[in-house]
Amino acid sequence: MPADAKIFFKQRVMTPGPTDVPPAVLLEMAQPIIHHRTKQFQAIFVQMTGRLANLFRTKGTVLTLAGSGTTAFESAMISLAKPGSKVITIAGGKFGERWQDIYDQYAPSLQVENIKINVPWGQAVTAQQVADALAANPTASVVALVHSETSTATACDLKAIAQVVSKSNAVLIADSITGVGALPMSMDEWGVDCVVTGSQKALMLPPGLGFVALGARAQERLKEVKAGAYYNLDLRRWVKAMADNDLPFTAPVSLIRGQNVALELIEKEGLETIWGRVAKLATASRAAFAAMGLKLISASPSDSVTGVFYPAGVEDSKFRGALRDKYGLHVAGGQDGRGAKWKTSILRISHMGYVDAGDTLAVLAAIEAELRTLGQKIDPGCALAAAAKVLAG
Amino acid sequence: MPADAKIFFKQRVMTPGPTDVPPAVLLEMAQPIIHHRTKQFQAIFVQMTGRLANLFRTKGTVLTLAGSGTTAFESAMISLAKPGSKVITIAGGKFGERWQDIYDQYAPSLQVENIKINVPWGQAVTAQQVADALAANPTASVVALVHSETSTATACDLKAIAQVVSKSNAVLIADSITGVGALPMSMDEWGVDCVVTGSQKALMLPPGLGFVALGARAQERLKEVKAGAYYNLDLRRWVKAMADNDLPFTAPVSLIRGQNVALELIEKEGLETIWGRVAKLATASRAAFAAMGLKLISASPSDSVTGVFYPAGVEDSKFRGALRDKYGLHVAGGQDGRGAKWKTSILRISHMGYVDAGDTLAVLAAIEAELRTLGQKIDPGCALAAAAKVLAG
Repeated sequence: MPADAKIFFKQRVMTPGPTDVPPAVLLEMAQPIIHHRTKQFQAIFVQMTGRLANLFRTKGTVLTLAGSGTTAFESAMISLAKPGSKVITIAGGKFGERWQDIYDQYAPSLQVENIKINVPWGQAVTAQQVADALAANPTASVVALVHSETSTATACDLKAIAQVVSKSNAVLIADSITGVGALPMSMDEWGVDCVVTGSQKALMLPPGLGFVALGARAQERLKEVKAGAYYNLDLRRWVKAMADNDLPFTAPVSLIRGQNVALELIEKEGLETIWGRVAKLATASRAAFAAMGLKLISASPSDSVTGVFYPAGVEDSKFRGALRDKYGLHVAGGQDGRGAKWKTSILRISHMGYVDAGDTLAVLAAIEAELRTLGQKIDPGCALAAAAKVLAG
Repeated sequence: MPADAKIFFKQRVMTPGPTDVPPAVLLEMAQPIIHHRTKQFQAIFVQMTGRLANLFRTKGTVLTLAGSGTTAFESAMISLAKPGSKVITIAGGKFGERWQDIYDQYAPSLQVENIKINVPWGQAVTAQQVADALAANPTASVVALVHSETSTATACDLKAIAQVVSKSNAVLIADSITGVGALPMSMDEWGVDCVVTGSQKALMLPPGLGFVALGARAQERLKEVKAGAYYNLDLRRWVKAMADNDLPFTAPVSLIRGQNVALELIEKEGLETIWGRVAKLATASRAAFAAMGLKLISASPSDSVTGVFYPAGVEDSKFRGALRDKYGLHVAGGQDGRGAKWKTSILRISHMGYVDAGDTLAVLAAIEAELRTLGQKIDPGCALAAAAKVLAG
């Protein structure tokens, strides 16, 4: 046998978004275009919206925006903040920092005072910290935070935080872009006012759709607040169109068709089953990394994405390049932000969406093999044995 | 986490045919139909035929028949045997026995005397056994045997056997349906007169095409022998059409388009690389089965398919049903024949075609997990650790 026998050759996307898309969804998106002002499309849109509500576990309104998760989060932030009020933005990673930047950017038009809470990267904000911030700023109109911070593979206790915020004057806007559909989240039961996600993570679609779910308090807030200088992102337009089961601008029909099928797959499998699988894949991965002697980047790990620090001497771009070129495995590196510079020091893999134990074993086997190639002292098979023990449990 | 968290959910076809098909091939087959009497189709057909010749490693003619591997093998047997002569058929499994049956079936029209050599299932015929049979039957016009016997996961030394047969009056017809593209095979260099394969194994296409490669001696034989009572399967028609780069009957255009792309993928990767990978996946699987205490069914294992006996108390249909329903993993059971009754006593997995280390780890993990569920005493993770050690070597 030649020494260079390429034993991995399938392309496996294990990045925390975009994630792989099931064949049934790809085929649905390959259907001929239909016009968006037709009964045929409206029926699909209504069905998809109902399925989204089940996914968020809300009786509120779920809006579907053509755009990214950032489109959706920005629209929620600027539509729900009271002009001239205080807003509390909480960051412990790259995405939390982005939401802080957005209110800074809108300062000239919204006149908000941006109260920033920053926790160290890899740590989760606590309900007590949020309670303290609200006590110090009782007139704050918004608390914006990240449920599952993808850049640091960290999840906070959103349920406990929602209980705190629901007693205040502020509405809570949660970035659950790598939470919804992967981690337990019950919007109405927990009292989260506004939850945002995107199509390209646990929702198993290509990038292109952002979703904003609005509970009762958030819908009330929309009525109170006058529209700002923005147009497309003004959620009032989207809520108004929803009264006619419509979108205010040209609907991305193929993505919506695909999303409807992806949500049907989720519905058939059952949310609790999916949450259980994601948790198990994450637990197995953490066990495998521990067996290889790699340290987690998070003190409060999210189950949707696992991040570890590289061992000394392993070079990020070369390592991920080798995983990609030699094993067909696409994983994520890190990012630089105000709270940390992790661009070249960490590795992250996803457990969301269309990824199962087989894919997870593949990426762990490849990481182990490549680390050994680079001279790391790792017992052959130890990562897989550790993961298999968890999966078998 | 719920106890029933379904950690495997992707469908993985690990049967020794049909095997999974790469997306690029599926997309090519989804192209609109073109007519088979066009320059556009002819260009594709010529390119595919050239690639097939490279795959078989022959300067001879490779024929593409609409049908199965059996279609192709039957056509070779009846087109190459001299009516009224002796034919030597060698079986050590279900497929070898089928080829023996075919000459029996044609006895009224071909008047051949069928000299049957049977070796125990799980063993390979030796070059010495073939030499002895030819010495006892020096006028035999055909030796028909199986290179890689799928039913028993057994490979013979085709190269040594071809050396023996090439010195006789017989032409050698080798069923390499699970050999070509998976196991080392160099038709011209080894002196194999006729090699048969099918599209649904290492050639990464859905079932539907059979291939017959004819070396110089086989082409000579075709000229010597008068056509029998058969029509569609008379290879003379196919060879004649090939002079015009054509097929004698309506060409399966979509399958041929797909096959051309699949062969391009094989060409890009390189045959030696593929042989090396198949061997490594098989070696890793055998190590994993050994770690689980499962006994191989073959004393001369083929690298394209691995078979093991179930441990006592494990029921075939329930076990494979559980792999399918709980893990999405499709594996093969056994078959009954004259030489053995293995229908419910063995399990087989494939290493051919569009299957890589990730898929192999998935099926081994699932087999280990399910055996443990059934109460087999197996250390969790032992199969994966054993496989990973081989893959890392």
